[in-house]
Amino acid sequence: MPTNKIGHSFSPDSGAVVGIVGLGYVGLPTAIGFHASEFEVWGCDKSLKVIDALKSGLNPVGDHELDSTIPPYGTAGWNLSNSVEKIAPLCDVILVTVPTPITSDLKPDLSHILDAGDKIFSSIDKAKHTTIVLESTVYPGVTNQVWRPLIQRYGLEEGVNVDIAYCPERFNPGDTEHTVRKVARVIGCNNKEIGEGLVEFYKNLTEEDVRFVGKIEVAEAAKVIENVQRDINIALVNELARILPAMDVDVEDVLSAAATKWNFHRYTPGVGVGGHCIPVDPYYMIQRAADVGVPAGLITAARAVNRSMPSHVAGVVTDLMWNAGVPAGEAKVLLLGWSYKAEVGDPRETPAEPLAATLIGKNISVGAWDPHIDSAMYPEGVIPVDDFSEAAGYDMVILVTAHKACLEIDWMGLLDNMRTPIVYDGRRVLDLEVLQSMGWKTYAVGRPANGN
Amino acid sequence: MPTNKIGHSFSPDSGAVVGIVGLGYVGLPTAIGFHASEFEVWGCDKSLKVIDALKSGLNPVGDHELDSTIPPYGTAGWNLSNSVEKIAPLCDVILVTVPTPITSDLKPDLSHILDAGDKIFSSIDKAKHTTIVLESTVYPGVTNQVWRPLIQRYGLEEGVNVDIAYCPERFNPGDTEHTVRKVARVIGCNNKEIGEGLVEFYKNLTEEDVRFVGKIEVAEAAKVIENVQRDINIALVNELARILPAMDVDVEDVLSAAATKWNFHRYTPGVGVGGHCIPVDPYYMIQRAADVGVPAGLITAARAVNRSMPSHVAGVVTDLMWNAGVPAGEAKVLLLGWSYKAEVGDPRETPAEPLAATLIGKNISVGAWDPHIDSAMYPEGVIPVDDFSEAAGYDMVILVTAHKACLEIDWMGLLDNMRTPIVYDGRRVLDLEVLQSMGWKTYAVGRPANGN
Repeated sequence: MPTNKIGHSFSPDSGAVVGIVGLGYVGLPTAIGFHASEFEVWGCDKSLKVIDALKSGLNPVGDHELDSTIPPYGTAGWNLSNSVEKIAPLCDVILVTVPTPITSDLKPDLSHILDAGDKIFSSIDKAKHTTIVLESTVYPGVTNQVWRPLIQRYGLEEGVNVDIAYCPERFNPGDTEHTVRKVARVIGCNNKEIGEGLVEFYKNLTEEDVRFVGKIEVAEAAKVIENVQRDINIALVNELARILPAMDVDVEDVLSAAATKWNFHRYTPGVGVGGHCIPVDPYYMIQRAADVGVPAGLITAARAVNRSMPSHVAGVVTDLMWNAGVPAGEAKVLLLGWSYKAEVGDPRETPAEPLAATLIGKNISVGAWDPHIDSAMYPEGVIPVDDFSEAAGYDMVILVTAHKACLEIDWMGLLDNMRTPIVYDGRRVLDLEVLQSMGWKTYAVGRPANGN
Repeated sequence: MPTNKIGHSFSPDSGAVVGIVGLGYVGLPTAIGFHASEFEVWGCDKSLKVIDALKSGLNPVGDHELDSTIPPYGTAGWNLSNSVEKIAPLCDVILVTVPTPITSDLKPDLSHILDAGDKIFSSIDKAKHTTIVLESTVYPGVTNQVWRPLIQRYGLEEGVNVDIAYCPERFNPGDTEHTVRKVARVIGCNNKEIGEGLVEFYKNLTEEDVRFVGKIEVAEAAKVIENVQRDINIALVNELARILPAMDVDVEDVLSAAATKWNFHRYTPGVGVGGHCIPVDPYYMIQRAADVGVPAGLITAARAVNRSMPSHVAGVVTDLMWNAGVPAGEAKVLLLGWSYKAEVGDPRETPAEPLAATLIGKNISVGAWDPHIDSAMYPEGVIPVDDFSEAAGYDMVILVTAHKACLEIDWMGLLDNMRTPIVYDGRRVLDLEVLQSMGWKTYAVGRPANGN
């Protein structure tokens, strides 16, 4: 008889052991959180570099909020390993927080989920019950499609020695308010009893609402549409950032005016969206809609707008340099910020990359300065600027990321070093009047070129 | 020397007289509001029927919240006329609240604005200063394009004896919280001094924020994008209402789960959007974007989704009846609600109309019951149901409008009178479990047909 722990294995008091597979932006704070709630925790990452860093008390991910919270190695209940097969049989609940990127042809790449699943299902202890929870973003249907066949393959029995569930992560990089301990969570599970057990389980992690929402696909779809909705709302302000300046109207004036209405949602246009969620998740839904033969025209249109913002901006800034008399073939542009989001050191899917690539394709030399980004992370062709004070000879500065450090540079000093004093605010965060009074020629996304 | 009242003609104390041209949903409460703030008010509508009703103390528009607030004819400061030419020379500020519908080819119909402008500009008193404010929804550029030529044509001088401004109405039918006295307003004006004077003026009407936002086009665009944003967000949930059931997932479960996230905007799918704003205003922006040669692909895609919801629902319900064994050519459908919005007696752009037309085109007989709608307002082919208790022989009931009266019908009684007991919830407001337990076969927009 297997020791069926259903219903009593979800609290630290009952000795439940938690495994976290994938110690990245999501997994690491989750592991730390459950450990802080007095669970026995096994943190697992296939990268030995990550495990070694953590054993030395160093934070291998960019989120420095975590630095002081990493338990010293050797602390009771804080275990680390790079072997999934080793930790899986020791755990009662295993959370999988591996990446789900998109492939170069914009299809969801599920290989990490399949790989983690393969290792977990093949090695859990059949003599007891293990709950395996996917937190990675996927399209509706993935958890059951990818993991369910593994249950049978490895001689397990759902509801007896294994159950699977889905609880989407809601990590918001750079956001110190909505941390893993302060966000509401939703749980989908084929087994209602386990789903409700997981509600109690996650209440150890977060002080906000935790809700069982029914079957796995509901929770999967919820995660995707959260990001689809953001993508669409950002796409709208980006589309307006193209339309309104052509009518000699500044999109920001209009958005601020509209935002006085009680039910308006304020979003800000920019050079493009980036990161591991918004530019990625909508493709999951588009792909899945195509599979079931239903049009996803709106979601697709939003993607088209946001995805084309970098090349749109590249076109605008090229014209500005041309009009300012910069000779073709000699133009030099400095990107301020490379990361996809302010105060985050993460270049994934950053719009800076297609922006730089488009400019380089026009024979424009592109330098980049971002104090949150390691110089080695820039793609080929982009010239890293390490010492900002030596940035010189540029024809244009483009504010790409609203890092505090980028806003607070020595604008007067940079002005002296420019060949042509053009600044383009790609995030609508600069005080252009002040810059103009210094002598900068100021432009911004969504603003008429005449500065109206 | 003209008596230039700029700067001192915007308060009731200084004897400013206010004219309101167009006493519909927006104009009437506006006129009542300014009168209540002790202005001398001239209410004007070209319809003698409207003026006569108001003189008798009757409310000619559907908004019964107003009934008790209409001043008795003869009350000091409460003047009514159907002649714009008569009232224009008497007023210091004239607000124009005429309709801006779309033409049958989906272009904005500006004839009412032009007509009102023509009458006003030709008859105002040149010996003083008159401020003329457009409140009707238009696309950016209309106020100046349509009205500015009239200034010269009628021998007026901007800034001397006339100024024009734009202050978009934010009337929300059926919403007792955000009335004309409780919404923030934005004002665009070519003349900053007048714009700021109008801020003080409108503060007599509303207790919320009033803001001068710069030039007229900013305020015009703000109004349009408020509705464009709503259209897009509703279109997203409608698109998901088609995609998710194909994956055997109920869109409402997903939206409720996503809504637990701190920054999710909760919208509800339905049989389509209606009214004088959301299905209309986006075409203004699409038209104007086309004029300036910039793509509006996202706004257009959203319109396509919402505009096709009635025919999508018509297709779904037809299949349901076919599957239930209803013989083709004999099917009878009853629409519960006809108005575009709950608790409002307004059939403008209601999705009920294309829904009914599509069903009728399939040889399905369509009846309609809506206690807020006069039977004479139904289009040809729709059979008005006056006495609900006599509704009999139907194969399906479609909840089109979430009027309280429609939700609270005698469902048991209706069930007995049905030929086939199918109910389709087109607004996701019915308790389908309760109806199912009565014996109804229940379906809903965005819900898998198997009821999952």
